[in-house]
Amino acid sequence: MGDGRFITVEGIEGAGKTTAIDIIRDWVKGQGGDPRLTREPGGTDLGEELREVLLRHRDGGMSAEAEVLLMFAARAEHLERVIRPALAAGQWVICDRFTDASVAYQGMGRGLGIDRVRSLGEWTHADLAPDLTLWLDLPVALGLERAAGRSLPDRFESERAGFFKAVRRGYAAIAADEPDRVRRVDSSGPPAEVRDGIIAALEARFGG
Amino acid sequence: MGDGRFITVEGIEGAGKTTAIDIIRDWVKGQGGDPRLTREPGGTDLGEELREVLLRHRDGGMSAEAEVLLMFAARAEHLERVIRPALAAGQWVICDRFTDASVAYQGMGRGLGIDRVRSLGEWTHADLAPDLTLWLDLPVALGLERAAGRSLPDRFESERAGFFKAVRRGYAAIAADEPDRVRRVDSSGPPAEVRDGIIAALEARFGG
Repeated sequence: MGDGRFITVEGIEGAGKTTAIDIIRDWVKGQGGDPRLTREPGGTDLGEELREVLLRHRDGGMSAEAEVLLMFAARAEHLERVIRPALAAGQWVICDRFTDASVAYQGMGRGLGIDRVRSLGEWTHADLAPDLTLWLDLPVALGLERAAGRSLPDRFESERAGFFKAVRRGYAAIAADEPDRVRRVDSSGPPAEVRDGIIAALEARFGG
Repeated sequence: MGDGRFITVEGIEGAGKTTAIDIIRDWVKGQGGDPRLTREPGGTDLGEELREVLLRHRDGGMSAEAEVLLMFAARAEHLERVIRPALAAGQWVICDRFTDASVAYQGMGRGLGIDRVRSLGEWTHADLAPDLTLWLDLPVALGLERAAGRSLPDRFESERAGFFKAVRRGYAAIAADEPDRVRRVDSSGPPAEVRDGIIAALEARFGG
Protein backbone atom coordinates (compact mmCIF):
# COMPACT_ATOMS: atom_id res chain seq x y z
CA MET A 1 0.00 0.00 0.00
CA GLY A 2 2.64 2.51 -1.00
CA ASP A 3 0.38 4.75 -3.06
CA GLY A 4 -1.94 7.30 -1.55
CA ARG A 5 -5.65 6.96 -2.17
CA PHE A 6 -8.33 9.61 -2.04
CA ILE A 7 -11.60 8.70 -0.31
CA THR A 8 -14.48 11.14 0.06
CA VAL A 9 -17.55 10.79 2.28
CA GLU A 10 -20.82 12.39 1.25
CA GLY A 11 -24.39 12.60 2.44
CA ILE A 12 -27.04 14.93 3.84
CA GLU A 13 -27.16 16.06 7.47
CA GLY A 14 -27.54 13.17 9.89
CA ALA A 15 -26.28 10.59 7.38
CA GLY A 16 -23.49 9.50 9.73
CA LYS A 17 -20.41 10.92 8.04
CA THR A 18 -18.42 11.35 11.25
CA THR A 19 -18.92 7.74 12.33
CA ALA A 20 -18.19 6.53 8.80
CA ILE A 21 -14.91 8.43 8.74
CA ASP A 22 -13.82 6.71 11.99
CA ILE A 23 -14.60 3.34 10.43
CA ILE A 24 -12.70 4.18 7.23
CA ARG A 25 -9.70 5.47 9.18
CA ASP A 26 -9.51 2.27 11.23
CA TRP A 27 -9.85 0.12 8.12
CA VAL A 28 -7.05 2.01 6.35
CA LYS A 29 -4.80 1.65 9.40
CA GLY A 30 -5.63 -2.06 9.51
CA GLN A 31 -4.37 -2.34 5.94
CA GLY A 32 -1.12 -0.60 6.86
CA GLY A 33 -2.13 2.71 5.29
CA ASP A 34 -1.44 6.16 6.71
CA PRO A 35 -4.74 8.08 6.90
CA ARG A 36 -5.03 11.87 6.71
CA LEU A 37 -8.46 13.16 7.78
CA THR A 38 -9.71 16.48 6.48
CA ARG A 39 -12.97 18.26 5.67
CA GLU A 40 -14.67 20.76 3.38
CA PRO A 41 -15.38 23.57 3.47
CA GLY A 42 -12.29 24.10 5.59
CA GLY A 43 -9.13 22.04 5.80
CA THR A 44 -6.77 25.05 5.54
CA ASP A 45 -6.52 28.40 7.35
CA LEU A 46 -8.10 30.10 4.35
CA GLY A 47 -10.74 27.40 4.09
CA GLU A 48 -11.74 27.72 7.73
CA GLU A 49 -12.05 31.50 7.30
CA LEU A 50 -14.23 31.01 4.23
CA ARG A 51 -16.31 28.45 6.12
CA GLU A 52 -17.02 31.18 8.70
CA VAL A 53 -17.86 33.67 5.95
CA LEU A 54 -20.28 31.18 4.40
CA LEU A 55 -22.05 30.50 7.69
CA ARG A 56 -22.20 34.20 8.58
CA HIS A 57 -23.76 35.20 5.26
CA ARG A 58 -26.36 32.51 4.82
CA ASP A 59 -28.98 34.63 6.59
CA GLY A 60 -28.52 37.43 4.10
CA GLY A 61 -29.03 35.01 1.23
CA MET A 62 -25.70 35.03 -0.53
CA SER A 63 -26.23 34.34 -4.24
CA ALA A 64 -25.88 30.68 -5.21
CA GLU A 65 -23.12 31.58 -7.67
CA ALA A 66 -21.10 33.39 -4.98
CA GLU A 67 -21.61 30.49 -2.58
CA VAL A 68 -20.36 27.83 -4.98
CA LEU A 69 -17.41 29.96 -6.14
CA LEU A 70 -16.41 30.39 -2.48
CA MET A 71 -16.65 26.63 -1.98
CA PHE A 72 -14.34 26.07 -4.94
CA ALA A 73 -11.92 28.77 -3.74
CA ALA A 74 -11.60 26.92 -0.44
CA ARG A 75 -11.29 23.64 -2.37
CA ALA A 76 -8.50 24.94 -4.63
CA GLU A 77 -6.49 25.92 -1.57
CA HIS A 78 -7.29 22.61 0.14
CA LEU A 79 -6.13 20.68 -2.92
CA GLU A 80 -2.87 22.60 -3.17
CA ARG A 81 -1.98 22.66 0.54
CA VAL A 82 -3.38 19.40 1.88
CA ILE A 83 -4.82 16.86 -0.53
CA ARG A 84 -2.22 16.80 -3.31
CA PRO A 85 0.80 16.89 -0.95
CA ALA A 86 -0.65 14.09 1.22
CA LEU A 87 -1.40 11.89 -1.79
CA ALA A 88 2.07 12.58 -3.20
CA ALA A 89 3.55 11.48 0.15
CA GLY A 90 1.66 8.19 -0.04
CA GLN A 91 -1.00 9.02 2.54
CA TRP A 92 -4.62 7.97 2.28
CA VAL A 93 -6.75 11.10 2.31
CA ILE A 94 -10.21 10.76 3.87
CA CYS A 95 -12.21 13.91 3.17
CA ASP A 96 -15.54 14.86 4.73
CA ARG A 97 -17.27 16.24 1.62
CA PHE A 98 -15.73 17.27 -1.70
CA THR A 99 -16.93 18.42 -5.12
CA ASP A 100 -19.94 16.07 -5.11
CA ALA A 101 -21.28 18.11 -2.18
CA SER A 102 -21.15 21.28 -4.29
CA VAL A 103 -22.87 19.48 -7.15
CA ALA A 104 -25.60 18.16 -4.84
CA TYR A 105 -26.06 21.21 -2.58
CA GLN A 106 -25.58 24.13 -4.96
CA GLY A 107 -26.29 22.31 -8.22
CA MET A 108 -29.51 20.60 -7.13
CA GLY A 109 -30.40 22.09 -3.74
CA ARG A 110 -29.94 25.69 -4.82
CA GLY A 111 -30.83 25.11 -8.45
CA LEU A 112 -27.66 26.11 -10.29
CA GLY A 113 -27.77 22.85 -12.21
CA ILE A 114 -25.55 19.80 -11.93
CA ASP A 115 -23.62 20.48 -15.13
CA ARG A 116 -22.92 24.09 -14.24
CA VAL A 117 -21.33 23.08 -10.92
CA ARG A 118 -19.51 20.14 -12.47
CA SER A 119 -17.86 22.56 -14.88
CA LEU A 120 -16.28 24.35 -11.90
CA GLY A 121 -15.00 20.98 -10.71
CA GLU A 122 -13.39 20.52 -14.12
CA TRP A 123 -11.92 24.02 -13.91
CA THR A 124 -10.46 23.40 -10.45
CA HIS A 125 -9.23 19.78 -10.54
CA ALA A 126 -9.61 18.31 -14.03
CA ASP A 127 -6.77 15.87 -13.31
CA LEU A 128 -7.91 14.56 -9.92
CA ALA A 129 -10.99 12.62 -8.79
CA PRO A 130 -11.57 10.56 -5.63
CA ASP A 131 -10.60 6.89 -5.88
CA LEU A 132 -13.74 6.09 -3.92
CA THR A 133 -16.71 8.12 -2.76
CA LEU A 134 -18.95 6.69 -0.06
CA TRP A 135 -22.43 8.13 -0.30
CA LEU A 136 -24.23 7.55 2.99
CA ASP A 137 -27.85 7.55 2.02
CA LEU A 138 -30.98 7.67 4.12
CA PRO A 139 -34.42 9.30 3.97
CA VAL A 140 -34.30 13.05 4.62
CA ALA A 141 -36.74 12.89 7.57
CA LEU A 142 -34.57 10.33 9.34
CA GLY A 143 -31.40 12.31 8.69
CA LEU A 144 -32.89 15.52 10.05
CA GLU A 145 -34.18 13.66 13.11
CA ARG A 146 -30.71 12.25 13.81
CA ALA A 147 -29.03 15.60 13.22
CA ALA A 148 -31.46 17.41 15.53
CA GLY A 149 -30.83 14.92 18.32
CA ARG A 150 -27.09 15.46 18.09
CA SER A 151 -26.76 19.20 18.54
CA LEU A 152 -28.36 22.54 17.92
CA PRO A 153 -28.90 22.85 14.20
CA ASP A 154 -26.40 25.16 12.51
CA ARG A 155 -27.35 27.28 9.51
CA PHE A 156 -26.76 24.49 7.02
CA GLU A 157 -28.78 22.03 9.09
CA SER A 158 -31.72 24.34 9.61
CA GLU A 159 -32.57 24.50 5.94
CA ARG A 160 -35.83 22.95 5.01
CA ALA A 161 -36.51 19.31 4.21
CA GLY A 162 -37.42 20.15 0.61
CA PHE A 163 -33.92 21.47 0.10
CA PHE A 164 -32.38 18.26 1.43
CA LYS A 165 -34.64 16.16 -0.76
CA ALA A 166 -33.24 17.99 -3.77
CA VAL A 167 -29.71 17.45 -2.43
CA ARG A 168 -30.42 13.74 -2.06
CA ARG A 169 -31.62 13.62 -5.68
CA GLY A 170 -28.34 15.30 -6.61
CA TYR A 171 -26.32 12.58 -4.91
CA ALA A 172 -28.48 9.92 -6.57
CA ALA A 173 -27.79 11.47 -9.98
CA ILE A 174 -24.03 11.51 -9.34
CA ALA A 175 -24.07 7.88 -8.18
CA ALA A 176 -26.02 6.85 -11.29
CA ASP A 177 -23.55 8.68 -13.56
CA GLU A 178 -20.39 7.34 -11.90
CA PRO A 179 -21.15 3.91 -10.44
CA ASP A 180 -17.48 2.85 -10.35
CA ARG A 181 -16.38 5.77 -8.22
CA VAL A 182 -19.46 6.33 -6.06
CA ARG A 183 -20.75 3.57 -3.77
CA ARG A 184 -24.09 4.08 -2.05
CA VAL A 185 -24.20 2.80 1.51
CA ASP A 186 -27.62 2.52 3.13
CA SER A 187 -27.20 4.39 6.41
CA SER A 188 -30.79 4.11 7.62
CA GLY A 189 -30.24 0.87 9.57
CA PRO A 190 -28.53 0.01 12.86
CA PRO A 191 -24.83 0.97 13.29
CA ALA A 192 -23.49 -2.56 12.78
CA GLU A 193 -25.21 -2.88 9.42
CA VAL A 194 -23.98 0.53 8.25
CA ARG A 195 -20.47 -0.44 9.35
CA ASP A 196 -20.66 -3.67 7.34
CA GLY A 197 -21.79 -1.70 4.30
CA ILE A 198 -18.86 0.69 4.58
CA ILE A 199 -16.31 -2.13 5.00
CA ALA A 200 -17.80 -4.02 2.07
CA ALA A 201 -17.46 -0.93 -0.15
CA LEU A 202 -13.84 -0.44 0.91
CA GLU A 203 -12.96 -4.08 0.28
CA ALA A 204 -14.71 -4.11 -3.08
CA ARG A 205 -12.71 -1.10 -4.20
CA PHE A 206 -9.30 -1.65 -2.62
CA GLY A 207 -9.21 -5.31 -1.69
CA GLY A 208 -9.21 -6.44 1.94
CA MET B 1 -30.34 58.60 -21.58
CA GLY B 2 -32.94 56.35 -20.04
CA ASP B 3 -30.96 53.12 -20.20
CA GLY B 4 -28.25 52.22 -17.73
CA ARG B 5 -24.75 51.74 -19.06
CA PHE B 6 -21.89 49.79 -17.56
CA ILE B 7 -18.44 51.41 -17.59
CA THR B 8 -15.37 49.75 -16.10
CA VAL B 9 -12.01 51.35 -15.38
CA GLU B 10 -8.84 49.27 -15.52
CA GLY B 11 -5.12 49.71 -15.16
CA ILE B 12 -2.10 48.88 -13.02
CA GLU B 13 -1.28 50.65 -9.76
CA GLY B 14 -0.69 54.36 -10.24
CA ALA B 15 -2.54 54.48 -13.55
CA GLY B 16 -4.94 57.11 -12.23
CA LYS B 17 -8.17 55.15 -11.84
CA THR B 18 -9.53 57.28 -9.00
CA THR B 19 -9.11 60.53 -10.92
CA ALA B 20 -10.54 58.93 -14.06
CA ILE B 21 -13.63 57.79 -12.16
CA ASP B 22 -14.27 61.36 -10.98
CA ILE B 23 -14.03 62.56 -14.57
CA ILE B 24 -16.38 59.86 -15.83
CA ARG B 25 -18.89 60.56 -13.06
CA ASP B 26 -18.96 64.26 -13.90
CA TRP B 27 -19.33 63.54 -17.61
CA VAL B 28 -22.24 61.15 -16.99
CA LYS B 29 -23.95 63.74 -14.77
CA GLY B 30 -23.41 66.37 -17.47
CA GLN B 31 -25.27 64.12 -19.88
CA GLY B 32 -28.18 63.80 -17.44
CA GLY B 33 -27.22 60.28 -16.36
CA ASP B 34 -27.38 58.92 -12.82
CA PRO B 35 -23.96 57.47 -11.92
CA ARG B 36 -23.44 54.68 -9.40
CA LEU B 37 -19.80 54.28 -8.33
CA THR B 38 -18.54 50.93 -7.09
CA ARG B 39 -15.36 48.88 -6.95
CA GLU B 40 -13.88 45.37 -7.05
CA PRO B 41 -12.98 43.39 -5.11
CA GLY B 42 -15.60 44.77 -2.78
CA GLY B 43 -18.81 46.60 -3.52
CA THR B 44 -20.94 44.48 -1.16
CA ASP B 45 -20.62 43.42 2.49
CA LEU B 46 -19.47 39.99 1.37
CA GLY B 47 -17.14 41.51 -1.19
CA GLU B 48 -15.48 43.79 1.34
CA GLU B 49 -14.98 40.81 3.69
CA LEU B 50 -13.43 38.82 0.86
CA ARG B 51 -11.24 41.80 -0.04
CA GLU B 52 -9.89 41.67 3.53
CA VAL B 53 -9.36 37.90 3.27
CA LEU B 54 -7.44 38.38 0.03
CA LEU B 55 -5.17 41.05 1.47
CA ARG B 56 -4.59 39.09 4.69
CA HIS B 57 -3.56 35.91 2.87
CA ARG B 58 -1.27 37.28 0.22
CA ASP B 59 1.74 36.84 2.47
CA GLY B 60 1.07 33.14 2.82
CA GLY B 61 0.89 32.74 -0.93
CA MET B 62 -2.70 31.73 -1.55
CA SER B 63 -2.88 29.56 -4.66
CA ALA B 64 -3.65 31.49 -7.85
CA GLU B 65 -6.73 29.31 -8.40
CA ALA B 66 -8.12 30.09 -4.94
CA GLU B 67 -7.43 33.79 -5.44
CA VAL B 68 -9.25 34.06 -8.75
CA LEU B 69 -12.19 31.96 -7.51
CA LEU B 70 -12.52 34.32 -4.53
CA MET B 71 -12.47 37.29 -6.90
CA PHE B 72 -15.29 35.76 -8.91
CA ALA B 73 -17.27 34.89 -5.75
CA ALA B 74 -17.13 38.56 -4.76
CA ARG B 75 -18.02 39.51 -8.35
CA ALA B 76 -21.05 37.21 -8.50
CA GLU B 77 -22.43 38.83 -5.36
CA HIS B 78 -21.58 42.29 -6.67
CA LEU B 79 -23.40 41.58 -9.93
CA GLU B 80 -26.50 40.30 -8.16
CA ARG B 81 -26.70 42.94 -5.42
CA VAL B 82 -25.36 46.09 -7.07
CA ILE B 83 -24.54 46.04 -10.77
CA ARG B 84 -27.59 44.30 -12.25
CA PRO B 85 -30.14 46.13 -10.05
CA ALA B 86 -28.54 49.52 -10.81
CA LEU B 87 -28.49 48.88 -14.56
CA ALA B 88 -32.09 47.64 -14.43
CA ALA B 89 -33.04 50.89 -12.66
CA GLY B 90 -31.48 52.93 -15.46
CA GLN B 91 -28.34 53.99 -13.58
CA TRP B 92 -24.92 54.27 -15.12
CA VAL B 93 -22.58 51.94 -13.23
CA ILE B 94 -18.94 53.03 -13.03
CA CYS B 95 -16.87 50.19 -11.62
CA ASP B 96 -13.25 50.39 -10.46
CA ARG B 97 -11.99 47.09 -11.91
CA PHE B 98 -14.00 44.12 -13.17
CA THR B 99 -13.34 40.80 -14.92
CA ASP B 100 -10.56 42.24 -17.09
CA ALA B 101 -8.57 42.79 -13.88
CA SER B 102 -8.84 39.07 -13.06
CA VAL B 103 -7.79 38.18 -16.59
CA ALA B 104 -4.80 40.56 -16.42
CA TYR B 105 -3.74 39.99 -12.79
CA GLN B 106 -4.40 36.29 -12.28
CA GLY B 107 -4.40 35.21 -15.92
CA MET B 108 -1.17 36.93 -16.94
CA GLY B 109 0.39 38.23 -13.71
CA ARG B 110 0.01 34.96 -11.83
CA GLY B 111 0.22 32.73 -14.88
CA LEU B 112 -3.15 30.96 -14.87
CA GLY B 113 -3.60 31.90 -18.52
CA ILE B 114 -5.96 34.38 -20.09
CA ASP B 115 -8.36 31.79 -21.47
CA ARG B 116 -8.63 29.94 -18.18
CA VAL B 117 -9.70 33.10 -16.34
CA ARG B 118 -11.97 34.20 -19.17
CA SER B 119 -13.83 30.92 -18.81
CA LEU B 120 -14.73 31.88 -15.22
CA GLY B 121 -16.03 35.18 -16.58
CA GLU B 122 -18.23 33.21 -18.96
CA TRP B 123 -19.38 31.02 -16.08
CA THR B 124 -20.27 34.01 -13.89
CA HIS B 125 -21.75 36.57 -16.31
CA ALA B 126 -22.10 35.11 -19.80
CA ASP B 127 -24.93 37.54 -20.54
CA LEU B 128 -23.31 40.76 -19.36
CA ALA B 129 -20.24 42.71 -20.50
CA PRO B 130 -19.28 46.35 -19.91
CA ASP B 131 -20.53 48.80 -22.51
CA LEU B 132 -17.17 50.52 -22.28
CA THR B 133 -13.89 49.71 -20.56
CA LEU B 134 -11.33 52.46 -20.12
CA TRP B 135 -7.85 51.03 -19.86
CA LEU B 136 -5.56 53.63 -18.33
CA ASP B 137 -2.15 52.68 -19.65
CA LEU B 138 1.28 53.87 -18.67
CA PRO B 139 4.76 52.37 -18.23
CA VAL B 140 5.04 50.21 -15.10
CA ALA B 141 7.94 52.21 -13.64
CA LEU B 142 5.93 55.45 -13.86
CA GLY B 143 2.84 53.82 -12.34
CA LEU B 144 4.78 52.43 -9.40
CA GLU B 145 6.46 55.81 -8.87
CA ARG B 146 3.09 57.56 -8.76
CA ALA B 147 1.58 54.90 -6.49
CA ALA B 148 4.53 55.09 -4.08
CA GLY B 149 4.21 58.86 -3.84
CA ARG B 150 0.55 58.58 -2.95
CA SER B 151 0.61 56.29 0.07
CA LEU B 152 2.36 53.42 1.69
CA PRO B 153 2.22 50.50 -0.71
CA ASP B 154 -0.38 47.89 0.24
CA ARG B 155 0.16 44.21 -0.47
CA PHE B 156 -1.03 44.45 -4.05
CA GLU B 157 1.12 47.51 -4.73
CA SER B 158 4.25 46.03 -3.22
CA GLU B 159 4.43 43.26 -5.77
CA ARG B 160 7.35 43.42 -8.09
CA ALA B 161 7.60 45.37 -11.33
CA GLY B 162 7.89 42.15 -13.36
CA PHE B 163 4.48 41.13 -12.16
CA PHE B 164 2.95 44.44 -13.25
CA LYS B 165 4.66 44.19 -16.62
CA ALA B 166 2.88 40.87 -17.14
CA VAL B 167 -0.40 42.47 -15.99
CA ARG B 168 0.10 45.27 -18.50
CA ARG B 169 0.65 42.70 -21.26
CA GLY B 170 -2.61 41.10 -20.14
CA TYR B 171 -4.50 44.36 -20.54
CA ALA B 172 -2.87 44.89 -23.94
CA ALA B 173 -4.04 41.45 -25.05
CA ILE B 174 -7.61 42.14 -23.94
CA ALA B 175 -7.64 45.51 -25.72
CA ALA B 176 -6.33 43.89 -28.89
CA ASP B 177 -9.01 41.18 -28.73
CA GLU B 178 -11.92 43.53 -28.01
CA PRO B 179 -11.19 46.91 -29.57
CA ASP B 180 -14.84 48.00 -29.61
CA ARG B 181 -15.35 47.51 -25.89
CA VAL B 182 -11.90 48.42 -24.56
CA ARG B 183 -10.43 51.89 -25.18
CA ARG B 184 -6.82 52.50 -24.23
CA VAL B 185 -6.18 55.93 -22.71
CA ASP B 186 -2.56 57.01 -22.40
CA SER B 187 -2.26 58.08 -18.77
CA SER B 188 1.46 58.86 -18.77
CA GLY B 189 1.02 62.54 -19.66
CA PRO B 190 -0.16 65.61 -17.71
CA PRO B 191 -3.62 65.53 -16.10
CA ALA B 192 -5.31 67.74 -18.72
CA GLU B 193 -4.23 65.43 -21.53
CA VAL B 194 -5.40 62.32 -19.69
CA ARG B 195 -8.72 64.03 -19.02
CA ASP B 196 -9.12 64.85 -22.73
CA GLY B 197 -8.39 61.23 -23.59
CA ILE B 198 -11.06 59.98 -21.21
CA ILE B 199 -13.70 62.43 -22.46
CA ALA B 200 -12.88 61.56 -26.06
CA ALA B 201 -13.37 57.86 -25.33
CA LEU B 202 -16.71 58.52 -23.62
CA GLU B 203 -17.95 60.69 -26.49
CA ALA B 204 -16.81 58.22 -29.11
CA ARG B 205 -18.75 55.45 -27.40
CA PHE B 206 -21.87 57.21 -26.10
CA GLY B 207 -22.07 60.44 -28.08
CA GLY B 208 -21.54 63.83 -26.42
